[in-house]
Amino acid sequence: MLIFLFESLPELLKINSIGSLLKKRISIALRINPEVDVNTHKYVNTSGGETKFGMDLSTVKTILEENKKYPFVDIVGVHFHLGSQITEVEPFIEAIRKVLEVVEEVEESKGVTLKYFNIGGGLGIVYDKEQPQEIEVFAERISSLLEEKKFRVILEPGRFIVGNSGILVTRVLYVKDATQKRFIIVDAGMNDLIRPALYNAYHKILPVELVSSSNKKKADVVGPVCETADFLGKDRDLDVKEGDYLAVFGCGAYGVSMSSNYNSRLRPSEILVKEAKAYLIRERECYEDLLQKEKIVSV
Amino acid sequence: MLIFLFESLPELLKINSIGSLLKKRISIALRINPEVDVNTHKYVNTSGGETKFGMDLSTVKTILEENKKYPFVDIVGVHFHLGSQITEVEPFIEAIRKVLEVVEEVEESKGVTLKYFNIGGGLGIVYDKEQPQEIEVFAERISSLLEEKKFRVILEPGRFIVGNSGILVTRVLYVKDATQKRFIIVDAGMNDLIRPALYNAYHKILPVELVSSSNKKKADVVGPVCETADFLGKDRDLDVKEGDYLAVFGCGAYGVSMSSNYNSRLRPSEILVKEAKAYLIRERECYEDLLQKEKIVSV
Repeated sequence: MLIFLFESLPELLKINSIGSLLKKRISIALRINPEVDVNTHKYVNTSGGETKFGMDLSTVKTILEENKKYPFVDIVGVHFHLGSQITEVEPFIEAIRKVLEVVEEVEESKGVTLKYFNIGGGLGIVYDKEQPQEIEVFAERISSLLEEKKFRVILEPGRFIVGNSGILVTRVLYVKDATQKRFIIVDAGMNDLIRPALYNAYHKILPVELVSSSNKKKADVVGPVCETADFLGKDRDLDVKEGDYLAVFGCGAYGVSMSSNYNSRLRPSEILVKEAKAYLIRERECYEDLLQKEKIVSV
Repeated sequence: MLIFLFESLPELLKINSIGSLLKKRISIALRINPEVDVNTHKYVNTSGGETKFGMDLSTVKTILEENKKYPFVDIVGVHFHLGSQITEVEPFIEAIRKVLEVVEEVEESKGVTLKYFNIGGGLGIVYDKEQPQEIEVFAERISSLLEEKKFRVILEPGRFIVGNSGILVTRVLYVKDATQKRFIIVDAGMNDLIRPALYNAYHKILPVELVSSSNKKKADVVGPVCETADFLGKDRDLDVKEGDYLAVFGCGAYGVSMSSNYNSRLRPSEILVKEAKAYLIRERECYEDLLQKEKIVSV
C-alpha cells in the first residue's frame, strides 16, 4: 500500500486536488508534531514547536474531524518522528500518549478509523559512551501502550539497523607534529563524512590492525580538505604511522548518503562484507564522473 | 610552472624522495602558518596554532636554512592562507611582515632565493552587513609592503571573484503557518547549499519578482530535507505564495561545490547568464545518475 504523508494544510489541499484531477481517493497519513522534549542535537530534534515538521495536535484534530471536506483523500494513519539519535524511551511514550488521546477522541466522536500508527525512527545507537535503551525494553514499553489497539504499528529505525554496520576505512597520509598538537592526516575528509563538522558528532577511530602500544599520543585525525572543519576526530589516543589504515566506526548511516564532491574529491567505493567475503556494491567515482554533467559553451 | 605546496616535514621528505626516484628537481613552496588572529568563523580560520594547516615560522626557517638536505626539491616560494571571509586587511599585513622577516633573514644568511610570495585568499564579501575593505585599499596596503621586493606576488581570492556572481533559484512549495512560526518550504535544501547549516551563514533571500508588499511576515525559509538543519534563512521578512520563485544570494562560491545527494536528492543544473542570454553549463542530475555506480550482488 502506498501512503503519502502530509504535514501541513496546504499539502493536504494539494493532494486532495490531485486526487480530484485523477478521480481517485489517495491514501494519506498525517505527520504530527507532538511537541515533546527530546534530548538530542538541535539539528536532529524534529519535534519542538520551532521545527518545520508536522502539525500541532489541535490542527490534526480539526483535520480529522473535518475529513469529509477532503473527499479525494483517505486518511489512513498518523505519523510522528521525534528526532534522531534518541537514547531514551520516555519521549516516545509521551508522544504516543498525546497522539492516542486525540486519535481516540476523534474516532469516537466522528467515526474516523485509522489503520496505521507510525512512531517514526530516531532510536539512538552507541557512537561513544551513549547508553541507549535496549531494544527489548523499548519494544515492551511501547507495546504495552499499543497492543490493545487495532492499529498496525510502523517504525523507521534506520540508523539503529545500519549505523553501526558500516565503517569508513582511511589511510594515514602524514603524521604532522605542529607546535600545539599532533595531526594525523588521512585520505578521507569532511566530504566523505560530514557528521563531525556538522553535528560535532563523535565517531570512534581505531587502527585496522590493532597492536598494543605504549607510544600513544593525543592527535586530531583530519582530512585533506581546505577547511578547519575537516576533521574526523579530535584528541584521540593513537600510535600510527604513514600508510597505516584507520577504521572510523558508526558510518553505516549518514555517511555516504551525506557525502559530497567538495574540493573535487571523488566519493569512495562501498564494500559489503559478509562472513569472510567482500563484494563491491558501489564503485569509486572517477574524474570523468565529476565532469559528466558539465558543458563547455561559447558565449 | 607547476609548484607543489607542502606543509609538513613528512610531506617535504616524500616529495624529495619522489624527486629522487624520478631523478628530477621538483619545484615546491612552503605553506606557512603565521599564527595571526583572524576574526572569522572557527571552521574557516586556518591560521591559528590549533589548525592543521601550514608550518610555524621556526620550522619554516629551519627548512629554508637546511634546504641542501633536500637535493631533489627546489624551494621556489612561500605561501600562507589565513582563512576565509576575512573582511580586514590588517591580518594580511601582519602575516606578510612576519613571513618577510624570516624569508629575508634566510635569504641573506643562506643565499636562498625565492621567486613566489603567495598570500592566499580569504578576502571577504558582502553576504549581509559585512563591510569588507575595498579591493583598491587592500591592494594599496599590500603593495606598499611588497612592491620593493623581487617576488612575484600570488593571490587566490576565489570567493571574492565568484561568490556574489551566483544565485540559487528555488520555488516555493508551501507556506506553512505552524504554531510558533511561519515556514516557507522551498524545493532547494541543505544538500544544495550547506553553508547555513554548517557555518550558520547568512544568505540574502529575495523574491525573483520584486513586488512591494505591506503584507510581509517573518518566516524561516526551509527545504524538504529530513533535518532541522535544513534551512536556507531564518526570520526573513517575506510575502510569497506557492509557486513563487526565490533567489538565494551569494551562492557562486561554496554552493554547488559543497552540494550532496543527501535524501536521494538530485543536484540542480547550473545556468550561466551573460547579458540577456542564458546557457546551460551543468545539466541537472537524474535518478540514473544516483544509481550509476551501484552494483547489485548476490551474496
